[in-house]
Amino acid sequence: MKILVLGGNGFIGTHILDELLDAGHEVRVFDRSHEVWRKPLPSVRYYLGDFANTPLLAEAMQGIDVVIHLISTTVPSTSNLDPIADIQSNLENSVRLFQLMRSANVERIVYLSSGGTVYGIPSILPVPETHPLNPICSYGIVKVAIEKYLGMFEYLYGLKPLIVRASNPFGPRQGHQGVQGVVSTFMHKILSDEKITIWGDGSTKRDYLYVTDLARMCRIAAESNLTGVVNAGSGRGLNLVELVQMIETATGKGADIEYIAARSYDVPEIVLNIEKARTLLGWSPGISMQKGLSLQFGWMAQDMKKNQI
Amino acid sequence: MKILVLGGNGFIGTHILDELLDAGHEVRVFDRSHEVWRKPLPSVRYYLGDFANTPLLAEAMQGIDVVIHLISTTVPSTSNLDPIADIQSNLENSVRLFQLMRSANVERIVYLSSGGTVYGIPSILPVPETHPLNPICSYGIVKVAIEKYLGMFEYLYGLKPLIVRASNPFGPRQGHQGVQGVVSTFMHKILSDEKITIWGDGSTKRDYLYVTDLARMCRIAAESNLTGVVNAGSGRGLNLVELVQMIETATGKGADIEYIAARSYDVPEIVLNIEKARTLLGWSPGISMQKGLSLQFGWMAQDMKKNQI
Repeated sequence: MKILVLGGNGFIGTHILDELLDAGHEVRVFDRSHEVWRKPLPSVRYYLGDFANTPLLAEAMQGIDVVIHLISTTVPSTSNLDPIADIQSNLENSVRLFQLMRSANVERIVYLSSGGTVYGIPSILPVPETHPLNPICSYGIVKVAIEKYLGMFEYLYGLKPLIVRASNPFGPRQGHQGVQGVVSTFMHKILSDEKITIWGDGSTKRDYLYVTDLARMCRIAAESNLTGVVNAGSGRGLNLVELVQMIETATGKGADIEYIAARSYDVPEIVLNIEKARTLLGWSPGISMQKGLSLQFGWMAQDMKKNQI
Repeated sequence: MKILVLGGNGFIGTHILDELLDAGHEVRVFDRSHEVWRKPLPSVRYYLGDFANTPLLAEAMQGIDVVIHLISTTVPSTSNLDPIADIQSNLENSVRLFQLMRSANVERIVYLSSGGTVYGIPSILPVPETHPLNPICSYGIVKVAIEKYLGMFEYLYGLKPLIVRASNPFGPRQGHQGVQGVVSTFMHKILSDEKITIWGDGSTKRDYLYVTDLARMCRIAAESNLTGVVNAGSGRGLNLVELVQMIETATGKGADIEYIAARSYDVPEIVLNIEKARTLLGWSPGISMQKGLSLQFGWMAQDMKKNQI
């Protein structure tokens, strides 16, 4: 299949590229810039531009079978600082994308939504896809609105969207600047002998998914004809204290933890119900948490060494 | 109480003004222009400007106890023509409003949402407030997104929103240009000896609510401390053929009906469950459908006569 990956040069995107190329697909990438980890892949065609650059996006979309949409210009922790910008850059440009797809007769799209934010504070754990959507951050609200436009374009114009609501991905190439993921941030601080900051008492529980498991899910999703919504998580919850202990085991180093006041936009506990993905996509996570942390440590230790040279 | 009504010079807004003034409230109006039916009301303070005019909106909000937000720049049937403009004019400006309220320490807001579009195609009738939100038009998606931002501002910043999901309001002062309401459009055409156009076979079922009943609900909502979501409808469904028959009875004139192809963004049947409004707000509709149509006919006949002179 010819697959266009929007945001294909990012942390999750590059793992999806690997997965798609391994499976023999023809891949195009639309992203702001080249990936920072490797040279451009010879078999991939790249389109570099802002998400708002619709002429370039239209060009990238010619003859494509499936779009995988991973672009997000915000993260949960920063989206509330400027919700208007969040709406403009993510919601408006996504609707423009769906309009472009309609014009180009491209029907299939896999959209990466956020299992960690769209549900808000869960009333059932693990959270099924049918749970009410009550996000407490702009990031989650914009994801919900994008999902709703996908539903409308499906109903009215025959778009065939599959929405993947991912839990917290972690693994090699994840940024460690404190916004992209707690796993890489904590691991990098431990390896750098820096203090770890935990908002709240460390009881905040999350569902962590190794990034190649998520990439495999996205590849299966792109190849399938399934529409609707599917959770992608490990199905297991881990609190921050437990996470730090597992990172200590993976890295063989002890952590220095500082506890500060909880953040109001953090959901206290979330674990995704992944039965639907198992049943309808035949997918289940393959890499255990401890194994994933070891793999991420292997990559990070090498990456830090390389950067010191 | 000091109440600011955004969109107070429109069809629903002017009825809310009447209701609020009768109850002894101090009223301000923010709207694009003056109302077309009457001279400016002497006891009301008017702020005329676009919804995007945040300095004027901030001025209007000084010292206010409650905001009633009725502004919508689109209607369901036109919103899909340009969803981006819908997002910009309605969603972004509403979020700006909530930010202004936060700065001005105004906590209470009654938001007029849309019971006819936010649920999409109902799986339960009459539809309760807990029904999933799957709109099939941009108008409904934007309303859902605004509701979600209200929920976020409530959770994070102490805003106290009550969301009123209204069914199809009808009554005096409703526009008859075919976009605002089927009741006034049909009635005006019958009185003008013009053909009535029905999309589909006339089986489309709607819940019609007389506008002063909706206005009373909004006044009670503004005076209450209740937050969350409440449906406002008649609780009864009427199909288009039945509606035309009742308008014929009210006007004493026969209709000439033309049936054309159904519109894809029309929900086939929707009736709202209004038990929550009855129980928590002590509200129920007071004007029957036939009585409401007679009142609207009385107003419209006089209005048409006046315009002929």
